[in-house]
Amino acid sequence: MRLKHDEKGRLLFTRCSGDGSYLNYLQLPLLLMRSFIIKGHTGGSREISMFHFKCTSKFRKSLVKIPDPKLLLHKPQAMPQCEFLTLNLTHYPKIADLRSGYLSKNQDVIDEAQRVHANVLGDLLERFSYAILFDLADYENKGDPAIAMGELQFLKRLGIQLLYYCKTSACSDKNVENAFLKFKDVSSAEMVVLLQGGGNMFSYESLDKIRESVITRFQDHTIVIFPQSIWLRYADYKLDYYRQMYNSHPDLTLLVRDQESYAIGEQMLPSAKVILCPDMAFQIGLVAFFAPASFDILWLKREDSETTGYVIPRPPPYLSLHVEDWTNWITPKTDTMEHIFHLTLNGLLFLQRGKVVITDRLHGHILSTLLGIPHVILDNNYGKVFNYHNSWTKGLETVRTARTAEQALAKAEELLSSYGGACQKNSMTFCDYNENLSQICK
Amino acid sequence: MRLKHDEKGRLLFTRCSGDGSYLNYLQLPLLLMRSFIIKGHTGGSREISMFHFKCTSKFRKSLVKIPDPKLLLHKPQAMPQCEFLTLNLTHYPKIADLRSGYLSKNQDVIDEAQRVHANVLGDLLERFSYAILFDLADYENKGDPAIAMGELQFLKRLGIQLLYYCKTSACSDKNVENAFLKFKDVSSAEMVVLLQGGGNMFSYESLDKIRESVITRFQDHTIVIFPQSIWLRYADYKLDYYRQMYNSHPDLTLLVRDQESYAIGEQMLPSAKVILCPDMAFQIGLVAFFAPASFDILWLKREDSETTGYVIPRPPPYLSLHVEDWTNWITPKTDTMEHIFHLTLNGLLFLQRGKVVITDRLHGHILSTLLGIPHVILDNNYGKVFNYHNSWTKGLETVRTARTAEQALAKAEELLSSYGGACQKNSMTFCDYNENLSQICK
Repeated sequence: MRLKHDEKGRLLFTRCSGDGSYLNYLQLPLLLMRSFIIKGHTGGSREISMFHFKCTSKFRKSLVKIPDPKLLLHKPQAMPQCEFLTLNLTHYPKIADLRSGYLSKNQDVIDEAQRVHANVLGDLLERFSYAILFDLADYENKGDPAIAMGELQFLKRLGIQLLYYCKTSACSDKNVENAFLKFKDVSSAEMVVLLQGGGNMFSYESLDKIRESVITRFQDHTIVIFPQSIWLRYADYKLDYYRQMYNSHPDLTLLVRDQESYAIGEQMLPSAKVILCPDMAFQIGLVAFFAPASFDILWLKREDSETTGYVIPRPPPYLSLHVEDWTNWITPKTDTMEHIFHLTLNGLLFLQRGKVVITDRLHGHILSTLLGIPHVILDNNYGKVFNYHNSWTKGLETVRTARTAEQALAKAEELLSSYGGACQKNSMTFCDYNENLSQICK
Repeated sequence: MRLKHDEKGRLLFTRCSGDGSYLNYLQLPLLLMRSFIIKGHTGGSREISMFHFKCTSKFRKSLVKIPDPKLLLHKPQAMPQCEFLTLNLTHYPKIADLRSGYLSKNQDVIDEAQRVHANVLGDLLERFSYAILFDLADYENKGDPAIAMGELQFLKRLGIQLLYYCKTSACSDKNVENAFLKFKDVSSAEMVVLLQGGGNMFSYESLDKIRESVITRFQDHTIVIFPQSIWLRYADYKLDYYRQMYNSHPDLTLLVRDQESYAIGEQMLPSAKVILCPDMAFQIGLVAFFAPASFDILWLKREDSETTGYVIPRPPPYLSLHVEDWTNWITPKTDTMEHIFHLTLNGLLFLQRGKVVITDRLHGHILSTLLGIPHVILDNNYGKVFNYHNSWTKGLETVRTARTAEQALAKAEELLSSYGGACQKNSMTFCDYNENLSQICK
């Protein structure tokens, strides 16, 4: 029994400093917390589930308004918010986003994401003592390392011991085979095999190949793919090849980050469990500023194959605008796992350079949400950013969507006048020095 | 009149966010603060000096113990601490360090450094409305950008408008000449010429050459060199050349960071004012952690011409030790002044990788002090680190000195068991993941 309880039966988790603290997902708004009394507490035995709570009549009254009743495939009626909070979402694989979109505060959206992680992934993983994790992103697209950091954070919180990990750059067939040989004696009842989340299923073949290697090799183990977005980018023959590959595994769960990906996944992978689940970077939680803004508007503009190819409009002369992709914002390299943290930190720093952010990168949106930076999102080429927003973050009060670059700039200027007038608080101050000086000797 | 007062006559300074806050050096321990009633308040006129305070009899009783009476050249008697706080230190150029070494808390040492800055540099610079600043360090030796950041911070606090700056990499003779031509019409009563501090007088010729260029060109302006350490590294003929060059200016002030440099400066530069003053990086103030530790001990080991050439001892197997110089920890490059901030931030990140730090770099010591990381210092080849420590930081309770690398490691281990057992608080957690895993596929 890994889970610990305090004297009132509430769950504790062990932080790395060794002191007991309550699970983050319990830090919901105070009113909701009162309904979080754990059912079926039988003195610390394994039967206690951390994901089912007593629902009082008082909280039945706060209804979740369901925009489309068809969403609730398994419970097709309006549902009290509190009842929703009691559901084991692995049994309701399409409705995990039911509450999140109604939340307007960053902290609440983050808490809800962590609650759903604990609910869905907790249910899937809690029975395992050990995990091995392939394809931890160690490259400069800061969103992927942020996901990796969230995954590691979550495993730590759940108390699952990581026996082995493999950074993307090191996940060769040979190393997958080495890992298999090294841990083949750990039983499939004790060890789960995990694959990094992201936005690269059926679209970035080097990563589908890593998954192929793992799925083919670990046929006897439960495999869970952390939350993904699906982009059907390949030609039909190749789609078919990987579809069959994924369907070949007897115990594969694919978590997906949006309804569009859910629909595709459910259709293409009938052999797999497909479950809606928010992006793992939300495990990082709310992040305190550690740097002041250098620009009024920081435009994180993707320069990869997912760009929609828009042109940056000319800003008004009174606005300082900086446009850059963060893949060129290079992080000091180390050969330990701290590199993944530093990549993430560098992404968080990159975004703090703007009082307001405009971005067409999903993790420009997600990390800005963790930081509390007001921002405008543009979609990528296949709808990933807006699909995510539609499921999880559409209620956020400091986020705007834009269809064109001109609209994005106009909305960013509105956000700037509403929220962006001051230096970032609680950080070292170094503002106003950047563009206003006569730096004649560059 | 740039200085602003509140309704009680206390000084305000304008933060970049635009709200009024009290000067940092007023944030001394509460007891001391009570004696900080400003003398001679005459309704906001320019005669009000910010650096003289009323001294009550109560506080006369808290004597500063003076280790060597000869230190007090101009006031050769034991002095009440409160009376020391009332001195205009530009008139007592050798005793600015009288109080700092008795302070045991990081916050107090930082406050005292900022108080002395305000006292000494405030007195020197307060009459100027404008400044130009040469040789702002934009290279990867993180201590120098940290000094630059402190200088900019201080000018901002004093309300002096920076008309022009020149990063080290851009301070060519031509650019010094350009700056002169551009600002020659700003009167010497209004504009001061400033030169970056550091540890490079009479030792790093490219920087002495920049100063030569500025000093030769700006003969009619007041020039102040921010706090330096002096290392007489050149052959005699070259020392003599630069000595004459510095003495050629009619209004040059050289601030020095330790008593050794004071003695050399006073002897070699009779034409200049030489005044003791702490390192400008202390203007950054106390820094909150933004990253967790990756190692038990981070050894920031200098690999430049100032190393003493020691060999790293083998650590006990239960300790994780990482040895690295921070000049190879490369910062993402931008062409605006934010680069100086990012270089500093990267230095602060580098140090946070250790629960405890060992270093022979002066700004390993100073930035660890700003962060509150317990650390052990070794000296550099010419005594710069220990000389600084002797003047300003020798009372700090979480700092140890070591004469050998073996001693440093042993003392670091002691600090670790006293202070270093937990994750850094208030930062994202990511610890325990670095070295403890079987990462068989590097």
